[in-house]
Parts: sequence; structure tokens; C-alpha cells
Amino acid sequence: MNEVLKQIHAHRSIRKFKMKGIEEKVLKEILEAATMASSSGNMQAYSIIVTKEKKMKEKMFEAHFEQTMLMDAPVFLTFCADFHRMRRWVEVSEAKNNFDNFMSFMIASIDAVLASQNAALAAESLGLGLCYMGTTLASAGQIGEILELPKHVIPVVGFALGYPDEKPEMRKRLPMNGIIHEEKYKDYSDESIKITYREKERSGMKRYSRHPALAKKIGRNRNLNLAQVYTELKYTEETHIKYSNDLLNYLVDQDFLKE
Amino acid sequence: MNEVLKQIHAHRSIRKFKMKGIEEKVLKEILEAATMASSSGNMQAYSIIVTKEKKMKEKMFEAHFEQTMLMDAPVFLTFCADFHRMRRWVEVSEAKNNFDNFMSFMIASIDAVLASQNAALAAESLGLGLCYMGTTLASAGQIGEILELPKHVIPVVGFALGYPDEKPEMRKRLPMNGIIHEEKYKDYSDESIKITYREKERSGMKRYSRHPALAKKIGRNRNLNLAQVYTELKYTEETHIKYSNDLLNYLVDQDFLKE
Repeated sequence: MNEVLKQIHAHRSIRKFKMKGIEEKVLKEILEAATMASSSGNMQAYSIIVTKEKKMKEKMFEAHFEQTMLMDAPVFLTFCADFHRMRRWVEVSEAKNNFDNFMSFMIASIDAVLASQNAALAAESLGLGLCYMGTTLASAGQIGEILELPKHVIPVVGFALGYPDEKPEMRKRLPMNGIIHEEKYKDYSDESIKITYREKERSGMKRYSRHPALAKKIGRNRNLNLAQVYTELKYTEETHIKYSNDLLNYLVDQDFLKE
Repeated sequence: MNEVLKQIHAHRSIRKFKMKGIEEKVLKEILEAATMASSSGNMQAYSIIVTKEKKMKEKMFEAHFEQTMLMDAPVFLTFCADFHRMRRWVEVSEAKNNFDNFMSFMIASIDAVLASQNAALAAESLGLGLCYMGTTLASAGQIGEILELPKHVIPVVGFALGYPDEKPEMRKRLPMNGIIHEEKYKDYSDESIKITYREKERSGMKRYSRHPALAKKIGRNRNLNLAQVYTELKYTEETHIKYSNDLLNYLVDQDFLKE
């Protein structure tokens, strides 16, 4: 394996960080790496917001469901879908405007996510660790307010970043033949779906039994299997419908979607 | 710079490919690298479809606006947001179901894009080249039909992949201070927006003057500046509104959005 593949395989999400801050030079290298990613039409329809100040982190902590890693990490990076900047340029260039529609939001989101993954790998190659936080999207509106995002800008992904203070095991991935399809989508039989998730189920339950809050919930309720932990404790329909509505409303507010 | 950063900085989109196919072992390494990326709750809510057969490529070629690189490259990879597989597992595990809403689509899309960027860097580290094709999303419904995607699966990003037969220059990126915001979004004055896009404008116009079809359009119409080329020739409001509506309708069809 070459160095790049080794780095990719070394990925572990890091949730515990040393007190040590990130050197300016190192942070700059990470952010520069982000901008090297592909973007639609080379438009780079994203912005990256760097959160370091304690007061800002406290606000972000609240928006991110009070996950402690946000306070513990020296830096939080928020990658935003951003067509505001491009539209400003179009405006001063006296061109017809565009990019205030759903397709534009998706293009900008993809640009932002590609940039984030370059930043993630760059950070890991420099000895740092990180954990993506899905709450970036679940609380997009609240985060947008904290970061003072103008219309046509939406926070899409973000991660806590710092020097790792833990060495977690790699989390089990699904087997390759459960993910890859040759030429056409090959649907799953009951049997093949059980085989596909067997190992994840085994290691997932072990993991959750060590997660104090979830273990308590699992134990208190009844003998939940891993799929039930996912949809009845972690990702309930109720919360997902709320996040969906919140996000769709925010897309309307930010002028990416007509009502 | 370490090897990972060097690789990230070496990225160029490749649109011309050698006739040479991709060895099975190499393709496997690329696909494995994809699955090492972070995913929401480690759910890996994506599938990767490998297109190699000539007949399938011809259909994909049509859906991708007849961009020749699709026919020239030995492989095309389509990264799909996929909650179908997870929902099948939830179903056979007798859990309450979920993941048929807009939030789920976004989570799965982000998973798919993170995986794709890992695959892209892995491929480049193995001497291959690629070009992301935004038509994956613009023609999502048509591609979904070709690849026989079930409900709760949507093609989000894709790239043509093969051994490079060109060595293009790096395309100019926006200056870092145009993209990075410290603590809060710093809005752009007319002056700062002009400075931010100055270099991109210069190199972009040079590039387009060498692109025969666009050069002809630019020349025939009038003296368009780069912003005008973007919004009046490349990404018109009309086409983006069409793609937006197509995609929103497909999200309804694929059961990720209520009407």
C-alpha cells in the first residue's frame, strides 16, 4: 500500500482531544488542501468557517446538541454550501444572476463535502484527528444564525479537529459485495441482507454495550437488536421528520427553494 | 509536504484517457478506500455502481449529455445515496422503519460524496485520473432508470476513471482569504469580491478562449466577461430551474420527499 492508501485506511473518528492547540501553519495547510478538491465548474461554491473562540464554541456546542467533543477540540470547521459569493461576483460583473434554486444548493453542498474530505485526510496526515458531526445539518438554521450566514449559504458538514487523545479501533465496514454493484443495482434478498449486516451487527452491539447512555437505554427498554437501536433510539422517524422540515424551511429562508 | 498533501495538491481533472483498462486489483483498492470514509452513524448509506460494459456506457453517455470522456474512460463510477439497503436490514430485523425523508436523503448524499472523494484520491495515488461529472445529478432520474435503482436510492456524484492521456495545468483556485472566514461569515464588498475573483477571471477567460465550442459562442454573442460566460452560457437560470424541478420530482418518486 502507498502512503495515501495507508492514510485512508488509518482513519478513525476521534472524539477525545489533547489540550494542545493547532499551529497556524498546520491549520493553513489543512484549509489549503480543502481548496484543491474538485468543484462543479471550478466554481468552489463553498465557504469554510473556523471556530476557535471560547464564546463562539459555547454557542456552537449548544447548536450541536451539547456534544462535549466540540468544547474539547481546539478548532471546529464548518463547511458551508455557498452561492452568495458567486452571486456577488455575478452581480458586480453585470451578468444575469442564477444559483437561487435547489440544484444550486445541491451543487454547492457537494463542493463543500468534497472540500471537507480533502481537509480531513490532510489533517490526519499531519497527525490530527477529527469527528464529523451530523448535527451540522440537523441544526443548520441555528448554526447559520450563530455564524451570521447570509442568504444562499447553508452549513452542510463540520468536524471537531485537534490532536487525538484516544486510539479507537476501526469501526467495522459492510463487506464490499454489499456496497458495490456491477453494471446494475442488484437487490438484496432477506438472506443476503442478513449476511451483509452480520458483522456490523455483532461489533455494533458490542460497541453500544460499552456506551454508557445507550447501554442504559437499551437495557432499560428490552432486548433491542442493532437495527432497533438505530431506528428506535438513535435515528427515530420523529426526529428525522423534524430535521427534514427544519432543513426544508431553512432552504426556503436562505432562498434555495421556492415555497 | 508529506505524501498525502502532495497527492492532494497534484489533483487535476482528467478528460482524456488511454485505451488501457483498469486492473481488477487496482479497482478493488479504490473501492475499498471509498468505504474507509466517515459516514453518518457508520451507516454507510451509499452504494457504488461500476459501469464497464459498452452497452451500459452507451446508455450512460446519453444520460450524461454525451460527454465523450464517459465513452473514452474504461470505467465510470456512480456514487448513490442509498437508504434502501439499510431499510431492508431494518425490515428483516423487525425494527420500526425510517429514512424515507429529506434529512435521510441529505445524510446519504453526504456519505456518498465523502466515499467518492476517498476513491478519487486513492485512484490518483495509483496513477489513475478522473473527472467528476455534475450531469450525475442533473440526469439523476434517467441514470436511476439505467442502473435500475430501487426507491430510496439516488445517484449523487460520479466520475469517469482511467489512465490519463493528458497533463492539464492546475485550474486557478480562489485566494484563501476569499473562502475562509474566522468565527463569523465576513461579507464581501464590491471591491473585495472583485479582488477575490480577479485571478480566476484572468485564467478562466484564457481557458475558455481555447475551448472551441465555448470560444465560438462567446465570440459570436458579444464581449462576455467570465461571470457572464458562467451564467449566460454554462449555467443558465433556465436549465438550473429545470434540473431543480427534475431532481425534486425524482426525490418524490424515490420516496425521499412528500409532495
